[in-house]
Amino acid sequence: MNFGFVTDENMSLLTDLYELTMAQVYFKEGMNKIAIFDFYTRSVENRSYFVNAGLEQLLYYLENIKFTNDDIEFLRSTGKFEEEFLQYLKNFRFTGNVYAIDEGEIIFPNEPVVQIEAPLIEAQIIETFLINSLQLPILVATKAMRCYSVAKGTVLVDFGLRRAHGTDAGMKAARASYIGGFTGTSNVLAGKEYGIPIFGTMAHSFVLAYGDEEKAFQAFAKVYPDNAVLLVDTFNTIEGIKKAVQAMKKLNMKSFKGIRLDSGDLLKLSKEARKILDQSGYKDAIIIASGGINEYKIKDLLDNNAPIDGWGVGTELVVSADLPYLDCAYKLVEYNGKPIMKFSKKKVTLPYKKQIYRFYEEGKIKKDLIVSFDEIVKGGVPLLKKIVENGKIVKELPSLSQIREKALENFKTLPEELKDINKTVHFLPEISEKIKETVKMLTKKYIQR
Amino acid sequence: MNFGFVTDENMSLLTDLYELTMAQVYFKEGMNKIAIFDFYTRSVENRSYFVNAGLEQLLYYLENIKFTNDDIEFLRSTGKFEEEFLQYLKNFRFTGNVYAIDEGEIIFPNEPVVQIEAPLIEAQIIETFLINSLQLPILVATKAMRCYSVAKGTVLVDFGLRRAHGTDAGMKAARASYIGGFTGTSNVLAGKEYGIPIFGTMAHSFVLAYGDEEKAFQAFAKVYPDNAVLLVDTFNTIEGIKKAVQAMKKLNMKSFKGIRLDSGDLLKLSKEARKILDQSGYKDAIIIASGGINEYKIKDLLDNNAPIDGWGVGTELVVSADLPYLDCAYKLVEYNGKPIMKFSKKKVTLPYKKQIYRFYEEGKIKKDLIVSFDEIVKGGVPLLKKIVENGKIVKELPSLSQIREKALENFKTLPEELKDINKTVHFLPEISEKIKETVKMLTKKYIQR
Repeated sequence: MNFGFVTDENMSLLTDLYELTMAQVYFKEGMNKIAIFDFYTRSVENRSYFVNAGLEQLLYYLENIKFTNDDIEFLRSTGKFEEEFLQYLKNFRFTGNVYAIDEGEIIFPNEPVVQIEAPLIEAQIIETFLINSLQLPILVATKAMRCYSVAKGTVLVDFGLRRAHGTDAGMKAARASYIGGFTGTSNVLAGKEYGIPIFGTMAHSFVLAYGDEEKAFQAFAKVYPDNAVLLVDTFNTIEGIKKAVQAMKKLNMKSFKGIRLDSGDLLKLSKEARKILDQSGYKDAIIIASGGINEYKIKDLLDNNAPIDGWGVGTELVVSADLPYLDCAYKLVEYNGKPIMKFSKKKVTLPYKKQIYRFYEEGKIKKDLIVSFDEIVKGGVPLLKKIVENGKIVKELPSLSQIREKALENFKTLPEELKDINKTVHFLPEISEKIKETVKMLTKKYIQR
Repeated sequence: MNFGFVTDENMSLLTDLYELTMAQVYFKEGMNKIAIFDFYTRSVENRSYFVNAGLEQLLYYLENIKFTNDDIEFLRSTGKFEEEFLQYLKNFRFTGNVYAIDEGEIIFPNEPVVQIEAPLIEAQIIETFLINSLQLPILVATKAMRCYSVAKGTVLVDFGLRRAHGTDAGMKAARASYIGGFTGTSNVLAGKEYGIPIFGTMAHSFVLAYGDEEKAFQAFAKVYPDNAVLLVDTFNTIEGIKKAVQAMKKLNMKSFKGIRLDSGDLLKLSKEARKILDQSGYKDAIIIASGGINEYKIKDLLDNNAPIDGWGVGTELVVSADLPYLDCAYKLVEYNGKPIMKFSKKKVTLPYKKQIYRFYEEGKIKKDLIVSFDEIVKGGVPLLKKIVENGKIVKELPSLSQIREKALENFKTLPEELKDINKTVHFLPEISEKIKETVKMLTKKYIQR
């Protein structure tokens, strides 16, 4: 029996087979000049912006990728690799450079979010893990910021671990949603590993095991007098709220943390709950809502003045339910100094090693301009920063809470129309003349063939 | 810098905080009688059946859950737990029983797929990880079988690792899709850890790095003469197919593995490709299609006689794109010998420890009947099997290939109308009179209060 955990020891094999078979061909042909690959997202119909996330996990991988004896042994057993190449893999390290946009920065379609500059074999081998590392964090950080953008200062907590796609998704979702403006997570391990504040309330099973709400609430509040958020919808919500109040009164509690509504008409129930709590003297008790919550429901409820103080956002956040995958790519854009592009009717690849300049006006993003790396641009802020040089991290990485703070600052730079969760604005970067000319030139060259 | 990998050493903290805070209350109150919890799925609009998967990973967890000193230290640091409870956690093991439906078996909504019988604290603490372990595998095994059901014997390969939700999702998707009828995966680590056959072709970047299709195809085929699947759509697909043929001719190859189409009108292109390959004497060269493939596209293409021999199914498979989360639950159904149910307008919970009997007619599933565990039923096959007793696995687990074989046998037992991927049949289990009576009795009791 084998769980199949991915760890330091085996992560280097977490790749598509073709990365390694192509690498063997390159190796045998001595084809290993410097390549530039771009990771970028494409436009979609229900996101006007994305929030960058997942970079630290990618950097960890790049600094630590190595093929262990065990890995080599497995590759040998497949019969697909020759000894010389296996020996090469034994000493394999990532020795390239990484240019990347900061985690927590706002990103737009077609912009290289991570740019890899490395010998071709290395740049190719890391492809699969790179995309895997970035896709979910970007999806969840973006979904989280969409929730944040309509939450009017109410508290958002990630409740999604159970419905995340496996163990790692639970960790990545907790981290990315924190970056996107959440206050914390229910995921204890994410609390330990990343220092994210952890929160919890109680389950229906807790009430059911006692068979009686008052008993259940009292038992919980005795152990957690300052931290009891009582789940009131197991039998009948309004009765449950009254039982919560009775239970707290019987314990002579002057105040208690609050209640959680997990089903039903949250607008109506939260208003009735507020009334009951206030009339009972529990004006400070908060109301948490959960159960199928997403940014659309949060906006709708708060626009209708639902007196909800906090949200447990689960499934829809961690699987990014209305956009469960990112249309993203990792494409070769330069090899051995020559610009490269792929041809496809709908899909854009921009040749060259590049830089993105962001222009602001009155504190808001005005436009992004993508240029080839050597073009001089005035007045914009360069977004791609050299984080890894010759395989080593050369820039101090911000802490997770610094990333989050920065992300919330970045949110303020979003043009207002991009914040509308019910509308999609295709805010695309401008492209420099040099790149445009090269696209034309390459298109002509390949079409003429 | 910390990736945050989930491993043997820290997996026990991969849980919602409330599992542990509720456990502390139970512990302090001495409330730890035997509880029965059901894990089950609910009806959805685009699935007529599900395929069970993920059990082995869950069993691994149950056999190995323990709180390390490091875990305890972290919990202590939160200030939420008392010393006595932390000492209890130090010696915590799962000591209960597990009844489960086999992996690879067809399952229907409302049926307990896994039934936990354990002291309340244990049964509660494992909740989050249990749901996390089962949800994605069931989603992906089901999506895979839907592809298999329309593939008419063509080959299906999981290409989804890069778009899976993190590292573990890539592993779970490879394993679950194999159970659901796929032939293999591109995921090398899944090949190593689970023994799944691994496959690969080549990337556009490979062709672009050479800048010339013929050169690229020759370089690849020289190293992999028996295994070259040439990607022909980098510039112009029809030209690319011709280049592939030319390249193989120049290498004097009498046959080669085949080509891959990754974009464009796959019906038209596959027909033209077949013609070109056949006319060039490469009648055995296969045609693989990829790029946004799902069961609907496979069916449509094959119904229109597209000469496609195999499919790389990626993103839509591994994120289960048209159903990215399972409406599933883990609910208390019995405590200390007493039946329990939760009340909710739309959601069913069935009280009691239960058994499911499946009835067949002419080799097809006729109906499922859910009864309380002590009811005697004749003529049906019991689906829930005791796999874990007192915390130890007591049944030999099948190998992954045995599970897959069994799954494909089980597929044949599906009533034909349930196999229609464009229609949803709500094939729900029948419920025994005893359970129905108890539901009535409990409803009355709680409503009268």
